[in-house]
Amino acid sequence: MIPKIPFIIYGADYNPEQWPETLWPEDMRLMRDCGVNLVHVGIFAWSKLNPKPGVYDFNWLDRILDLLAENGIYAGLATATASPPAWLARLHPDSLPVDAAGTRLSHGSRQHYTPNSNAYWTHASALVEQLAIRYAQHPALAEWHVNNEYGCHVQLSFGEEDALAWRQWLIERYSDLDTLNEAWGTSFWSQVYHQWEEIGTPCKMPYQPNPAMALDYKRFFSDAFRELFRREKAILRRLTPEVPVTTNFMGLFPTIDQFSWADDLDFAALDSYPDPKDATNPFGLPISHDLTRGIKQAPFVLMEQVTSQVNWRPTNHLKAPGQMRLWSLQSVARGGDGIMFFQWRKSRYGAEKYHGAMVPHTPPEQSREYEESRRLGHDLQRLAPVRGSQVQAETAILYDWSNRWLLEAESAPRRFDYEGIVGEFHTALLRGGITADISPAERDLSAYRLVIAPLAYIVSEKAADNLRRFVANGGTLIMSFFSGVVDDRGHIALGGYPGKLRDLFGLWVEEWEPLEEGNPVELSMGDAVTTGSIFSERIHLEGAEVVADYASGRFAGEPAICRNRHGKGEAFYISTLPASDFLAPWMASVATQSGVARPIGQPPAGLEVVERVKGSERFLFLLNHNPHPIECQAKEINGLDLLTGASVGPTATLAPYGAMVIQQ
Amino acid sequence: MIPKIPFIIYGADYNPEQWPETLWPEDMRLMRDCGVNLVHVGIFAWSKLNPKPGVYDFNWLDRILDLLAENGIYAGLATATASPPAWLARLHPDSLPVDAAGTRLSHGSRQHYTPNSNAYWTHASALVEQLAIRYAQHPALAEWHVNNEYGCHVQLSFGEEDALAWRQWLIERYSDLDTLNEAWGTSFWSQVYHQWEEIGTPCKMPYQPNPAMALDYKRFFSDAFRELFRREKAILRRLTPEVPVTTNFMGLFPTIDQFSWADDLDFAALDSYPDPKDATNPFGLPISHDLTRGIKQAPFVLMEQVTSQVNWRPTNHLKAPGQMRLWSLQSVARGGDGIMFFQWRKSRYGAEKYHGAMVPHTPPEQSREYEESRRLGHDLQRLAPVRGSQVQAETAILYDWSNRWLLEAESAPRRFDYEGIVGEFHTALLRGGITADISPAERDLSAYRLVIAPLAYIVSEKAADNLRRFVANGGTLIMSFFSGVVDDRGHIALGGYPGKLRDLFGLWVEEWEPLEEGNPVELSMGDAVTTGSIFSERIHLEGAEVVADYASGRFAGEPAICRNRHGKGEAFYISTLPASDFLAPWMASVATQSGVARPIGQPPAGLEVVERVKGSERFLFLLNHNPHPIECQAKEINGLDLLTGASVGPTATLAPYGAMVIQQ
Amino acid sequence: MIPKIPFIIYGADYNPEQWPETLWPEDMRLMRDCGVNLVHVGIFAWSKLNPKPGVYDFNWLDRILDLLAENGIYAGLATATASPPAWLARLHPDSLPVDAAGTRLSHGSRQHYTPNSNAYWTHASALVEQLAIRYAQHPALAEWHVNNEYGCHVQLSFGEEDALAWRQWLIERYSDLDTLNEAWGTSFWSQVYHQWEEIGTPCKMPYQPNPAMALDYKRFFSDAFRELFRREKAILRRLTPEVPVTTNFMGLFPTIDQFSWADDLDFAALDSYPDPKDATNPFGLPISHDLTRGIKQAPFVLMEQVTSQVNWRPTNHLKAPGQMRLWSLQSVARGGDGIMFFQWRKSRYGAEKYHGAMVPHTPPEQSREYEESRRLGHDLQRLAPVRGSQVQAETAILYDWSNRWLLEAESAPRRFDYEGIVGEFHTALLRGGITADISPAERDLSAYRLVIAPLAYIVSEKAADNLRRFVANGGTLIMSFFSGVVDDRGHIALGGYPGKLRDLFGLWVEEWEPLEEGNPVELSMGDAVTTGSIFSERIHLEGAEVVADYASGRFAGEPAICRNRHGKGEAFYISTLPASDFLAPWMASVATQSGVARPIGQPPAGLEVVERVKGSERFLFLLNHNPHPIECQAKEINGLDLLTGASVGPTATLAPYGAMVIQQ
Repeated sequence: MIPKIPFIIYGADYNPEQWPETLWPEDMRLMRDCGVNLVHVGIFAWSKLNPKPGVYDFNWLDRILDLLAENGIYAGLATATASPPAWLARLHPDSLPVDAAGTRLSHGSRQHYTPNSNAYWTHASALVEQLAIRYAQHPALAEWHVNNEYGCHVQLSFGEEDALAWRQWLIERYSDLDTLNEAWGTSFWSQVYHQWEEIGTPCKMPYQPNPAMALDYKRFFSDAFRELFRREKAILRRLTPEVPVTTNFMGLFPTIDQFSWADDLDFAALDSYPDPKDATNPFGLPISHDLTRGIKQAPFVLMEQVTSQVNWRPTNHLKAPGQMRLWSLQSVARGGDGIMFFQWRKSRYGAEKYHGAMVPHTPPEQSREYEESRRLGHDLQRLAPVRGSQVQAETAILYDWSNRWLLEAESAPRRFDYEGIVGEFHTALLRGGITADISPAERDLSAYRLVIAPLAYIVSEKAADNLRRFVANGGTLIMSFFSGVVDDRGHIALGGYPGKLRDLFGLWVEEWEPLEEGNPVELSMGDAVTTGSIFSERIHLEGAEVVADYASGRFAGEPAICRNRHGKGEAFYISTLPASDFLAPWMASVATQSGVARPIGQPPAGLEVVERVKGSERFLFLLNHNPHPIECQAKEINGLDLLTGASVGPTATLAPYGAMVIQQ
Repeated sequence: MIPKIPFIIYGADYNPEQWPETLWPEDMRLMRDCGVNLVHVGIFAWSKLNPKPGVYDFNWLDRILDLLAENGIYAGLATATASPPAWLARLHPDSLPVDAAGTRLSHGSRQHYTPNSNAYWTHASALVEQLAIRYAQHPALAEWHVNNEYGCHVQLSFGEEDALAWRQWLIERYSDLDTLNEAWGTSFWSQVYHQWEEIGTPCKMPYQPNPAMALDYKRFFSDAFRELFRREKAILRRLTPEVPVTTNFMGLFPTIDQFSWADDLDFAALDSYPDPKDATNPFGLPISHDLTRGIKQAPFVLMEQVTSQVNWRPTNHLKAPGQMRLWSLQSVARGGDGIMFFQWRKSRYGAEKYHGAMVPHTPPEQSREYEESRRLGHDLQRLAPVRGSQVQAETAILYDWSNRWLLEAESAPRRFDYEGIVGEFHTALLRGGITADISPAERDLSAYRLVIAPLAYIVSEKAADNLRRFVANGGTLIMSFFSGVVDDRGHIALGGYPGKLRDLFGLWVEEWEPLEEGNPVELSMGDAVTTGSIFSERIHLEGAEVVADYASGRFAGEPAICRNRHGKGEAFYISTLPASDFLAPWMASVATQSGVARPIGQPPAGLEVVERVKGSERFLFLLNHNPHPIECQAKEINGLDLLTGASVGPTATLAPYGAMVIQQ
Repeated sequence: MIPKIPFIIYGADYNPEQWPETLWPEDMRLMRDCGVNLVHVGIFAWSKLNPKPGVYDFNWLDRILDLLAENGIYAGLATATASPPAWLARLHPDSLPVDAAGTRLSHGSRQHYTPNSNAYWTHASALVEQLAIRYAQHPALAEWHVNNEYGCHVQLSFGEEDALAWRQWLIERYSDLDTLNEAWGTSFWSQVYHQWEEIGTPCKMPYQPNPAMALDYKRFFSDAFRELFRREKAILRRLTPEVPVTTNFMGLFPTIDQFSWADDLDFAALDSYPDPKDATNPFGLPISHDLTRGIKQAPFVLMEQVTSQVNWRPTNHLKAPGQMRLWSLQSVARGGDGIMFFQWRKSRYGAEKYHGAMVPHTPPEQSREYEESRRLGHDLQRLAPVRGSQVQAETAILYDWSNRWLLEAESAPRRFDYEGIVGEFHTALLRGGITADISPAERDLSAYRLVIAPLAYIVSEKAADNLRRFVANGGTLIMSFFSGVVDDRGHIALGGYPGKLRDLFGLWVEEWEPLEEGNPVELSMGDAVTTGSIFSERIHLEGAEVVADYASGRFAGEPAICRNRHGKGEAFYISTLPASDFLAPWMASVATQSGVARPIGQPPAGLEVVERVKGSERFLFLLNHNPHPIECQAKEINGLDLLTGASVGPTATLAPYGAMVIQQ
């Protein structure tokens, strides 16, 4: 239900209210020059649209939408609810978020509201209703952009209304206090609750809060933001039943359990800001795109990225020439049916005036930033046939926000970087030319041949059944260390980890020795030798065979990687993180044995390979992330490069940061 | 007055209320299998025992105590006052601690009370009284475990009740404001108080608080916790006059002036958690045991340690195989008449579920963690003869909490790590095979031949007299840099440091140059050359002779270490911290010259040697902290190894992490 | 209007109220021995002078001032308003400052007041009036020392009275909300204000505050402190019209826009505490002296420095022998007509008892600290002829507090260390033997031949006109990267940086690539090669010629340093920070071509050369900052060394840390 524009969507956030109206015609001219077909309007306009309680001023927005319509450009109209006006903070200080130390945060930046505020909701819903009534029939209206980056700055709030909503959420979840006390394990540290009113928020305490409480509070806030979205959507659906509604998430950002919003979004949207100088990963943030596609298992829109350089890192590097185009095409390859920027025109004031934009501070037509934006627009027009096709993936990586939240709350054998470890497996697959979906553990996995479960700390009953069924039916499962340790309440799987999955892997784990950075252990697999980092475990075999042993460290001579047949499939357990130069080919070989197809076999270093498919049409994306040209040869490279119109194959030569989209 | 169990006490915290009652018989079976003879029950049970104000539920505790009695296992019954129930926080928010920024900390972790709260005390005392009445005659009751780790998380609180109690404490200490103003030096920075009500707490200020105020506030809190203990003990003594009462301290943890509690405790108890990967010290934390023994100058109980790995460090390493046993025997060697763990059964939920325990998550009888616990129990049974013997020490190291607190509050020539520097001297002695007591400076020192005063920043009048008397009577004193600089109010010893001790050391110090890490100075002592770190001082001789000179740095060519005869003894002043490879043999040689006996002379590297004595019986502990075997030879090694029953001597071979306890 | 003492002023803060009165005669004897002629009295005496509201006790101060008068020593009498008594905090908690999180800071350290407190002002003004009435005619009174180090600890406060005063300040600055909304760019992030009452302070927010608001809040606080000063001065001027009034600033310390106080101060004063172990700069903090001289373009008083070592760094190193004298003479060289210490007698208690002083804890006449103070006093007496002469500078470096404040508030392409970058240019000049004034950008520059504008991020209309005029009239301007980017509201100079100065430099900048530490780019200038760090920029030439190119990095082959003729002068633009070994000679050569005189040409490494001039008299200061002797030769070295009375030239030999003051 992405807006029905018969091209790849192309555009940006457009904030004309920050500029003299005399500049607007020039904006239209430049947008047309760039091939822009959709812009998001009004995202931070609440204080202009609604200068006082009950008073609205839509005149300027009328003019902008009319102008867009005249120029054939669609509008994703924002509901503008992400940053309340100063009068709300003044009249309703309760609407402001409260930090863990009890400080009420002030107006003056953005996102200064708690989702549990009634006053916020009263005034936000009034605005949304006014907007929907006024613009329901406007020809420019193509989409509703609700709020903005939920939970970006205010991930949690600890005020009185929060506590009230929290207890209500708990009552709905647990029904009675006995169930809650058992779930949270409150007999530990004398925390048993005897009345609901005794339950506070996990704000500042003498020591760490109960981890189950901390986990539930994050679940509660994810749900609280979803509840806000649902209420806005209900208004919009009632008044504009045909217009798709969405909001922009932030990839791996930890606040929102995005999978739980799948049914609420008409399509998924992503804001993605990889660091061009991130030395650990030359591929940008491809996992974000896979994750966003995974929300609805469908194409999505890249709703924000930057043309050149962001402003919020301590040091903000420019993307290399061509890199912005390459990363945009990466998004298309991975299911992006729209490519958009924050923002159209680079601000002349405010907190983000050094954030790149399609139109820079300097004369646009003499500036690289504009020129690259214009060229990308034309490239995307050539990719119109790709629109609506599905990304081809026979592999899935499991991802779970509760997992991440609980790991952050636990005093575990070591601190884990969940995002980093999942990323290691994702990158290993990518290096082998394999595209993965990102999936929750409880979703049907039968379409996959290979499933990876990195740091699957929580395994619920339902997930355990799902994984067992997947393998029994012929799938291949790779699960990492410190997985299956707890259930979804954070209770230990007693009797030997990974609890209910012991039989699936044919082993049990007795104990763990964390590995310090810079102090890995050696692993041996036949003649091959590599290293393991992060973690090591003592494994007891119960039917599994040993794939690799520890060759040093606490568990020298004991199993490190094991394989177990189960039903028609097999399950690998890897109790440490192998070095990436080992992990990538090993996973590629497991994938191949599992029947996972690799579009061109093993790609050269730095080449990303993804396929999208629509009926019998196949679109093979070849993306060169190297700052130098590469050549690759494969019989599967055979067809028309949509970007140039030239036929290609079986050898393809890609310029530095170059790309091909071969229609087959 | 340690519980009258005729063995080394062995056991753990036991929290059966966190487990299904069906598991309790299995607990009994395993405890007997391990040789457990005492467990601590109810430490975090307040919210279960006292679900509402005035309402008590002792049924489950009755059943547990009965079960223990039936199985011949004694109970150290906790008063459960360390973590109030949620209803107390709800009904009496004033009972919660307040941090320096004024944030009232919440219920949800543990220790959420200020010792100055009347509401806390009202409800805590009611519980204690109920417990004592109910279990006074219970056959399992062997000991009262009051509260738990006082001041572990809430070291200070800054609320209104705290301020009231603080002013009362000040009135008792200083009687009148003139005395307080003089003691605190309030004429500096315009801080003179003219009414008691003007005195606030040292909470958040524009800049650092008056250091004397900061020092007194820590003294006040140590006293406030002691006052709580005294009140609980008064109830318990009244109702159970024969049952020993204690609480568990945390070694060098900075909150409590443990020496000031000596008369209040019936016996001393220690929680000790050395880091197995602490590269700076292979010996664990032997100083903690010496310190705890020093509280009452008597054997103590190691009340908490971990079997395998803790959960609260960023990275939590497993103890090496054998290391838990070795460190347990170290505790016995240094006066531990009881060895206990936190906890019996590893939690399945809550904040500490990854803290090791005697019974792990995995099948106990197939797990190393349980097996090592079981073996230790049997080892300890063989050490029954050691019970009640005294540790042999002719050397004392001075330790003073006020010293530490004031150093933390001062803007001194550099920041000092008091604990670290005291540890350097303790380890140097240990490496020379010398056991030290830890003592306050004002206690009678006549039993010692050698006294070390590391970083004795504060020297009170009484301590100065004590040290002068000790040397005059033939003792040897070694005092370090930055000592004797202030009196116990933090007032400078004017006229040349170390003030009143100038004549004792035959020198005065004019000025200080701190040394940056990695930038030591050279020292020369005859032909020997070493380095000094941390600090250097300009010394003016007034009778002392020079032992070593600075060979580089600001004071090159000037004295670094001096010796002065005084009465029948001598006093060494060392104005920098010599490298440990110099310090250990130099101190061993000073010790030898002072007549300090070393049980086997100079031990090989990594071997700890301690003697306990009871009448004519001597128990020689040889503890190999190396991960490899060692052999040592000495004529004093001659007797029966209690652990094996084999006779040993004069050569002993110790396995990696191996130990012998030779009865002579 | 520096006190009319016909010598270089010499003395210290004198706090006799912290010592027994019996010691005062000894103080007088030692002061005379040292040549002390002025002391500051009463700086932290409010709580003694005014023990209760409305009650004053001046007896002790009478006695001290009489004693000083008897001993021929002048008093700079403090108004004692920097640290209110405890009763003010108790009776008027609103007088206490509030931090950004809303915590009201407590009494117990110092500076615990907000300048916007009415209660503070009521009681402070009453004290000032009492002091002025009582001592107006006292023979010792030579100067009023108002408050102390404004804004040292409390740089900002966020309480209710602050918010009220802030809104008043905004109304005065902006008159109407439209102007404020435009200036702050509040249409960004929905921050438009519709009523003045909606404007809060930039306290804790979900994310960074509006940078223009943050900038204005710092301007407001600088003005709020100035308002306090003005009110105190009005009282003092009314009652003692002849007595000069000042306060002591702290050099580059960021709180106060010192240039904006030029008309308020009768003379400028500096507290300066360079770190003796600051490896990056062997010259101490000469820029602080130049800055302080620049406030009134006149000689000033160094009001605080330390004799030996401070107490507030983590590690506090002693000055090398001779270094305190050298740095004192450096201050005289750069316009210091008075040299004073904090403090006379080293405290025996309180927070600063380890801060060096003229009289140490140890016997003064046996201590280096006193001896060096005494010798300096005698040196300064020999420099009496220098008093009142002007420092000779044909070069100016522009400095702007708003620039610094706005850079701190921005999310710019990278974080900049404004102080550090300005210092790089100052040091480069010093190494070339060139003395610079520090000047605001809008002040008349016609007296200079060379002006340096490092990191001149803000260039106002007026400053742009001033710089253009300066160059048109024949001056040489060097401006660095990231300059001229915004106007004084922080609005971007659109159309190509540096906006209005494009024509002056004959170029425009399109984009920026920040450089990470340790990853510089190469620069080539003809055959010379060097490196650039911090920043690089893409330059488009519009008439400028290229002086140096980038030889690597993002902009390899493009211009790095450019020169443009403009009117009778020329303007250099350097788009990166060249390595200092390149920058110093290059700037010296530009200076020489611009007609800037260098007193002795190129000095040897570590030699500082400064001239002061009074009519036809010239005083050439040669200051050897090396720990080894140096020799230098120049025909300009020719005259009488005031310090020794010996004639010198043309070769001068300077001892380690040695100095000459050659009268010509």
